[in-house]
Amino acid sequence: MAYLNDNFLKLKAGYLFPEIARRIKVFCEENPEAAKRLIRCGIGDVTEPLPPAVITAMHQAVDEMARRETFRGYGPEQGYEFLRHAIARNDYRDRGLDIADDEIFVSDGSKCDCGNILDILGNRNRVAITDPVYPVYVDTNVMAGHTGEADDSGAYAGIVYLPCTASNEFIPEPPKEKVEVIYLCSPNNPTGAVASRAQLEAWVRYALSNKAILLFDAAYEAYVSDPAIPHSIYEIPGARESAIEFRSFSKNGGFTGTRCAFTVVPKSLMAHTSTGEARSLHPLWLRRSTTKFNGVSYIVQRAAEALYTPEGKGQVRTLIDHYMGNAKILREGAQAAGLNHFGGVNAPYLWVQTPKGLTSWQAFDRILNQANVVITPGSGFGSKGEGYFRISAFNSRANAEEVARRLQALKW
Amino acid sequence: MAYLNDNFLKLKAGYLFPEIARRIKVFCEENPEAAKRLIRCGIGDVTEPLPPAVITAMHQAVDEMARRETFRGYGPEQGYEFLRHAIARNDYRDRGLDIADDEIFVSDGSKCDCGNILDILGNRNRVAITDPVYPVYVDTNVMAGHTGEADDSGAYAGIVYLPCTASNEFIPEPPKEKVEVIYLCSPNNPTGAVASRAQLEAWVRYALSNKAILLFDAAYEAYVSDPAIPHSIYEIPGARESAIEFRSFSKNGGFTGTRCAFTVVPKSLMAHTSTGEARSLHPLWLRRSTTKFNGVSYIVQRAAEALYTPEGKGQVRTLIDHYMGNAKILREGAQAAGLNHFGGVNAPYLWVQTPKGLTSWQAFDRILNQANVVITPGSGFGSKGEGYFRISAFNSRANAEEVARRLQALKW
Repeated sequence: MAYLNDNFLKLKAGYLFPEIARRIKVFCEENPEAAKRLIRCGIGDVTEPLPPAVITAMHQAVDEMARRETFRGYGPEQGYEFLRHAIARNDYRDRGLDIADDEIFVSDGSKCDCGNILDILGNRNRVAITDPVYPVYVDTNVMAGHTGEADDSGAYAGIVYLPCTASNEFIPEPPKEKVEVIYLCSPNNPTGAVASRAQLEAWVRYALSNKAILLFDAAYEAYVSDPAIPHSIYEIPGARESAIEFRSFSKNGGFTGTRCAFTVVPKSLMAHTSTGEARSLHPLWLRRSTTKFNGVSYIVQRAAEALYTPEGKGQVRTLIDHYMGNAKILREGAQAAGLNHFGGVNAPYLWVQTPKGLTSWQAFDRILNQANVVITPGSGFGSKGEGYFRISAFNSRANAEEVARRLQALKW
Repeated sequence: MAYLNDNFLKLKAGYLFPEIARRIKVFCEENPEAAKRLIRCGIGDVTEPLPPAVITAMHQAVDEMARRETFRGYGPEQGYEFLRHAIARNDYRDRGLDIADDEIFVSDGSKCDCGNILDILGNRNRVAITDPVYPVYVDTNVMAGHTGEADDSGAYAGIVYLPCTASNEFIPEPPKEKVEVIYLCSPNNPTGAVASRAQLEAWVRYALSNKAILLFDAAYEAYVSDPAIPHSIYEIPGARESAIEFRSFSKNGGFTGTRCAFTVVPKSLMAHTSTGEARSLHPLWLRRSTTKFNGVSYIVQRAAEALYTPEGKGQVRTLIDHYMGNAKILREGAQAAGLNHFGGVNAPYLWVQTPKGLTSWQAFDRILNQANVVITPGSGFGSKGEGYFRISAFNSRANAEEVARRLQALKW
């Protein structure tokens, strides 16, 4: 009798985005006229086309695949040297950060890597996760059997939740208790908050003194505008001994449908065998990559490489400026509407408090019905997200301006 | 103190292909003249360019990504409907097999899927694996903690090995004992053997009567030339209740560097909770896909779709005919050289017995040194592969002809 993985049955049935999709569908069926003016600021998906440098590089790579002499079959699972080098040099070494080419692992997405990283970690680690949070961190730990059942608030037994609220400006301090694996995301999805250098230093100190590992999700680093805010955890001394960093081309190059990301695993990062012997995690992740992955499409790796050319960098800057221009318009709209709001300065997300004590889903329904705008209910990201909603700045300029206007016309 | 996954330390250090690469490197450094005439028939990687229909589709998809109106962001994690439908219709329903579009899960590779499928299965299953075998099946079970340590022959405690030898024509019968998960690969990598309908019927009967699950790897189905040999496990009645099928575009469309594959999980396939309750695996795999994967690049999915157009089908046929023409030449060469050989009729691999009781690696070294040809030592695929080597037919016609000549000139 074949067994399934019982841990999957602990997962709550309604993942956030399918439930949003369901409510939109019902609304559109019941309100066909209003449906025509619907604007989606829910899912954090880019809207602008790929940069011209990427388009050129992909056409060229496709042509290479059409000729025997330049055709590419299996590539290195961990990524082509040309891309690993471009990443390590541009994102790290040119910024004074000591990361070698072979500490870069190219993948098809940060979501995948955030889940897959658990493959190389043991099952006895106590895991700390911020609340609210990107649901993938929690769900992959549930699947791996690192938790008990969820309670009524959706919190799983066994996970140490780190509340992110207005009182700590949505950046948690290290806990008093000992934990071994900590997920941090800065700039943050969903709150749009960013961790300061001092806050990250405190986390690295905590990790070093507890021999813990930080899983640092920097998918939105390109949106940091404040020069005092670190773009990488490796700007903090000691992070090479305590942190894995996840990066993505989804939100800088607009690769959400093109699929490329990377993970940095420094060779000096150690974890322990069950008998307490310290070992580098780098060879484990390399082995995991070569055994369970076959590399990213050659064409897509050439596309990612193009983001590091002078033209590509300029075009990425234009994309970021576009979305951050939207964020400014949305912030001003939320301000004029009298909404208590956070984020949107170093991140493409606004985190807005619901007025009049409404729940997140009540606010969702009201904004959908009155303004015909889709936002994301904060409670979908965890119990401490209740009473908030997220507005995404990923949109056209015209839509951002229209949403800013409609926010002000809302009757709460 | 953060723990690593101890099971990784059970893995043997030298994965097959890195060791081959090392020996080639040494040889080429020591023999620069001979290195110039080296022909690689080792790794099973395609050599011919992508079909023209694929190139056209990719250029078009790249252009779509360049314009706001046709740009694609996040797609469905399990694949675009256009591709799932093309697969289900062409590979299954048009052949009289009952597979729905939403039973197809598009992925970036069969290697990934073969490993990831363990995420949804329990840890108490007794796993049966053929010997010799594609190493990924074994290694991913080791990583998941389903085995004990390896013995001197490389066999892991806890795995039920199914010997594939000349005496069973390299296709094993179901074991006498009870196992819950069985990996089958037909056409087989590395032996080139194919399972007959009667053999697959015996496996489906075994799975149904033991409530076991067959993991059926059909990555090489396009190479089946004998009309009596099934292309899919779903040609066998009862397979919808007992089997998951893995398919790939790597070896038919030449996508080894382009990356696209799919897995079929029928809704009627059940597994059991730890309390013995039967549940469909389909929602678990869907949940796994949506949580730990973000879909295949839009451009690559359009490329795969093009393989199902009339032009694409004809071009795939030409590719298969090319490689199988090579296989025939290599078979004839092995025959003329007096080598005892198998496979190469319904599969792009020849499985050759080493002469004079040489070990697989002795044969590897001799063929490399004398003929300047790279093959794959059979022992790299498992202890029962000792005394064999694999010759891949993935090559240019000129190279295949040259290898056939050189085989005959070998002095054993």
